[in-house]
Amino acid sequence: MRHALEGRRILVTGGAGFIGSHLTPALLARCATVTAYDNLSLGRRELLAAVEGAARFRFAEADLLVTTDLDAVMKGHDCVFHLAANSNISLGRGQTDRDLQQGTLVTYNVLESMRRHAVRELVFASSSVVYGEARRQPTAEDDGPCLPISLYGASKLASEGLISAFCHNFGMRAWIYRFGNVVGGRLTHGVIFDFIRKLREDPATLTILGDGRQAKPYLHVDDCVAGMLFGWQQHAEPLSYFNLAPEGATVVRDIARFVVEAMGLADVRVELTGGARGWPGDVPQVRLDPSKLARLGWRASYTSDEAVQRGILAALRELAPDMARR
Amino acid sequence: MRHALEGRRILVTGGAGFIGSHLTPALLARCATVTAYDNLSLGRRELLAAVEGAARFRFAEADLLVTTDLDAVMKGHDCVFHLAANSNISLGRGQTDRDLQQGTLVTYNVLESMRRHAVRELVFASSSVVYGEARRQPTAEDDGPCLPISLYGASKLASEGLISAFCHNFGMRAWIYRFGNVVGGRLTHGVIFDFIRKLREDPATLTILGDGRQAKPYLHVDDCVAGMLFGWQQHAEPLSYFNLAPEGATVVRDIARFVVEAMGLADVRVELTGGARGWPGDVPQVRLDPSKLARLGWRASYTSDEAVQRGILAALRELAPDMARR
Repeated sequence: MRHALEGRRILVTGGAGFIGSHLTPALLARCATVTAYDNLSLGRRELLAAVEGAARFRFAEADLLVTTDLDAVMKGHDCVFHLAANSNISLGRGQTDRDLQQGTLVTYNVLESMRRHAVRELVFASSSVVYGEARRQPTAEDDGPCLPISLYGASKLASEGLISAFCHNFGMRAWIYRFGNVVGGRLTHGVIFDFIRKLREDPATLTILGDGRQAKPYLHVDDCVAGMLFGWQQHAEPLSYFNLAPEGATVVRDIARFVVEAMGLADVRVELTGGARGWPGDVPQVRLDPSKLARLGWRASYTSDEAVQRGILAALRELAPDMARR
Repeated sequence: MRHALEGRRILVTGGAGFIGSHLTPALLARCATVTAYDNLSLGRRELLAAVEGAARFRFAEADLLVTTDLDAVMKGHDCVFHLAANSNISLGRGQTDRDLQQGTLVTYNVLESMRRHAVRELVFASSSVVYGEARRQPTAEDDGPCLPISLYGASKLASEGLISAFCHNFGMRAWIYRFGNVVGGRLTHGVIFDFIRKLREDPATLTILGDGRQAKPYLHVDDCVAGMLFGWQQHAEPLSYFNLAPEGATVVRDIARFVVEAMGLADVRVELTGGARGWPGDVPQVRLDPSKLARLGWRASYTSDEAVQRGILAALRELAPDMARR
């Protein structure tokens, strides 16, 4: 892969976010020129500390809702990795236009700016949430219906539709990845983060939302980046769409157990709030069929459990170094 | 069905449009109280002439993008039939935010206004365009993927996702109907309208976009209204979604022949612009599986060809009464 991306000029939206801060160094390492675009609402500049000052790296602090800023930065790129979004699904319920603005409208702005500047390639961070409560599990890319149950899911589905329409009408190419739950260093929210925070406050009790039987595939962020780059470098169709996740799933109760063990705790009393669903809009049971990407030759290197366990260790190092066993 | 809707207070968005102007009298005839909401950008007040002055009818000339107006009208209703949209698919390509504004954002505004005013039931006019170029034909409701090829299709898919998420999170019920091509009196655009207009200008030549082999299911507007009302009155699930179309399809060349015959013309030279697709964003081959609604007990009363032929006669009476044979 060395020099594989030499001469490519890539814009990464959400570049200072969790996944963006892993993707950006990976693109630079493959000799691409990279602009990380972020409004720093969720992202943090220091996550990109390792690449600051690199010759082919630039940071643009700007908002994707300000189209003049976006247009000014877009010009001269030839590919966009569009990762920016409100990544905290449960927030959408309290502010119903949050995902519409930061998901759907932002994606439209990116596509329209690409069209105006003849930028032809888009790689998009979608999610298994587009399937809603899938009828068939593991769910494959061509399974329907797509009826999301969160506003976040609605915005990812809307973004996919816009991308598909722009590709068809304006000669663009796109790669849509429907991620499982991505975990790893620099994570800022989610179940691992919640459990660690709760156990720091009260190491004797852990409250789990729902019945603890919820199970989803967890994808390590290194696999997330590697999978996106792999599929993108297969130039098969104008619009490619892939599940990006390991086979299988990890049960929330097991995540709790992994966190307790990693923090060296014992005799933690687990309380369950009850119900199949952690919170309204949460899909409790997710299994993704990763075979479409596998048929092209790529598989996640970590299982879901391994991804969770690595994610826990990374989060502990960052959040509670005093409590990390290793 | 007499008095079936007595006491129901129904808001019809796009009430002065093609389908709305057929639905509104049908709801009034079943003793509902109806507000037709329309900004008259595509709709025309005179299409509602038959119900003006009726005791249970009110017209609100207002825009769905002006949320204060929408909120003022929404209050006191218990159901919304949401038909308003940019109905001319090909326009989206020239103005890429047209369907985003008049489709996606408008649907969000309707849902949010319903949530704020505790209006619990929504009937939505979606379209077969959500399937894009379907892998399987006839296409059933649970077939995937949903990758639309027009901006209009993207907005219908985005609207479906928003409706699904609002139903799940806020205790609403919705009925989504994916229409075939709806035809009948008061139509303002589409292939029948185009052919009549062209033949009035030049009765010797008819230019057909594409190779003329495009084929879609055409649904008569009376069946459209009847099917929507039928499914809505089945209170099965929080979110119901149905194809609404006859079986089969009508080929564009046959529509041309039907129009020529109905206008009493002969020796019309047909010119084909060529290519499988009429215009970018057009899905050339559509077949919808109507069996989900059929299993509940409803079928279209007209075949696709019959719907087209009735649509032609109605359009001729309106557009070219001098050229109509009957």
